[in-house]
Amino acid sequence: MSLKYGIIGTGAIGGYCGGKLAHAGKDVHFLFHSDYDYVKNHGLQVDSINGNFHLSDINAYNSTKDMPQCDVILICLKSTNNYLLKELLPPLLHEKSLVILIQNGIGLEEDLQKDFPELYIAGGLAFICSSKLGKGHITHQSLGKINIGSYSCPDLSILNAVLSDFQESSVDAALVDYEESRWKKAVWNIPFNGMCVALNTTTDKLLENPATKQLLYEMMLEVIRAANHSGAKHKIEESYAEQMIELTKKMPPYAPSMKLDFDFHRPLEIYYIYSRPILEAKKNGFSMVLASMLEKQLKFIESSYLKNKQ
Amino acid sequence: MSLKYGIIGTGAIGGYCGGKLAHAGKDVHFLFHSDYDYVKNHGLQVDSINGNFHLSDINAYNSTKDMPQCDVILICLKSTNNYLLKELLPPLLHEKSLVILIQNGIGLEEDLQKDFPELYIAGGLAFICSSKLGKGHITHQSLGKINIGSYSCPDLSILNAVLSDFQESSVDAALVDYEESRWKKAVWNIPFNGMCVALNTTTDKLLENPATKQLLYEMMLEVIRAANHSGAKHKIEESYAEQMIELTKKMPPYAPSMKLDFDFHRPLEIYYIYSRPILEAKKNGFSMVLASMLEKQLKFIESSYLKNKQ
Repeated sequence: MSLKYGIIGTGAIGGYCGGKLAHAGKDVHFLFHSDYDYVKNHGLQVDSINGNFHLSDINAYNSTKDMPQCDVILICLKSTNNYLLKELLPPLLHEKSLVILIQNGIGLEEDLQKDFPELYIAGGLAFICSSKLGKGHITHQSLGKINIGSYSCPDLSILNAVLSDFQESSVDAALVDYEESRWKKAVWNIPFNGMCVALNTTTDKLLENPATKQLLYEMMLEVIRAANHSGAKHKIEESYAEQMIELTKKMPPYAPSMKLDFDFHRPLEIYYIYSRPILEAKKNGFSMVLASMLEKQLKFIESSYLKNKQ
Repeated sequence: MSLKYGIIGTGAIGGYCGGKLAHAGKDVHFLFHSDYDYVKNHGLQVDSINGNFHLSDINAYNSTKDMPQCDVILICLKSTNNYLLKELLPPLLHEKSLVILIQNGIGLEEDLQKDFPELYIAGGLAFICSSKLGKGHITHQSLGKINIGSYSCPDLSILNAVLSDFQESSVDAALVDYEESRWKKAVWNIPFNGMCVALNTTTDKLLENPATKQLLYEMMLEVIRAANHSGAKHKIEESYAEQMIELTKKMPPYAPSMKLDFDFHRPLEIYYIYSRPILEAKKNGFSMVLASMLEKQLKFIESSYLKNKQ
């Protein structure tokens, strides 16, 4: 099965994943926003710990209206822009298109499904430390795995074809249980993203300090308990928190995506990373006290610079 | 009863309270540290919303060894310096000296009593917005009340004499229940001090933002519940949290003492304002989750600049 890919949002994750697929010869079509003119002229540069590469001949677009219908669409936007999908997606869709939301948070697929009730949707969990250095320039610093879980895709063959394509592009990929995986990702995201913003720091510094290391651990346990109240088929073991701490210790000093959004005074993904999981947990009778405190601090921080921007 | 006063720590609170007493003609002896030479030459200036005044002829010392024995000693040090009291206090003490700890936090009196088992000790709760602007220069921005609660002072007459002296110096003062008052003060201190540091802001900004206003309110409720687990005679009503929010709204934009310590990269009073009440609550079977999270964030913040200072 030869698949046509659409990449919506060619930033740190979209640029890396789409770039790897295109570099391996897959048929990939990229939506750009502010970088469109630059990439049209200069191509896309990906610096990776596994080898740098440059895509000079890239299918770049600045509107989905100009893009072909795609079999697989990777949504790599900031979730703060997901309200745009209602308008962005339709030109790309055929009857069996699969949309994979490679985004952080809880509830993303549910919300998209409301707008597109027939759409095949999957969640994509990126364990990839990458960032956008500048126009058309992505850097990949560590890790490099993508887990995919079906939310509403009855067709296993397309999911398997996507996995093959990723593997042929030397991106480690696996099929996982959707619900469990979304929450497992949240176990990392909820503590690290917000704490790096609130304390204006990076993952390594938080783990060097005994007080914040302990707090991160407690926040992870809270997310695990919230997940285990969510009715997912598989319970997450509490030892997963220690695993995540150890994994992060081995990573180079890292500024999570929310920290970069903060540094560049962009909107923070508070809703899907904090507010929504807090709400889901509450519905299931579990109170995420630590995440709620951090959520409120982040709202304060975001409002202080978004207000200044106006 | 004509009392001789010693002021240990002539900063925002010591300078204001001692200054008011001296300005009213009371016999007051001030210990200075880095400001000693300046004050010896230029005196002490107090700018107050209730009228500025200058004390040119001030009993200033740079060692307690040179000070007379005092009837009442007001401890207005940062609690991070309380380890010095063991050495500072003895020259000032006679058999019936009363030491009033005008400091923020829980457990201060208990710790001092361990070093001085026979000493008469009281807690002083300052509701005074003042700060030190520079050498020998105090500014008083709003409020101006001091509550005194006996911790181990069997002699009501001296406490009443202190109240009279304050009142004659136009400082509003009252006798209160020690345990209840210490915790009531913590209801304000625990949310506002740390949050102003963690979010690098002032009280007004925190109350303007609905998310942080809600968080402050929840933190206040947590302190009230901790207090009500502490076995104090009087329970604190939960409505006290709303009262404190309303009181703070009416104050001018205010940077609490911990925020000033942060701004000047001084040690933060984390132990007595956070760690100790958290420990006391834990002993009584209550977990201060929000205060504990803030405590850990503050430890991170403090360590990041104290480390750089070395």
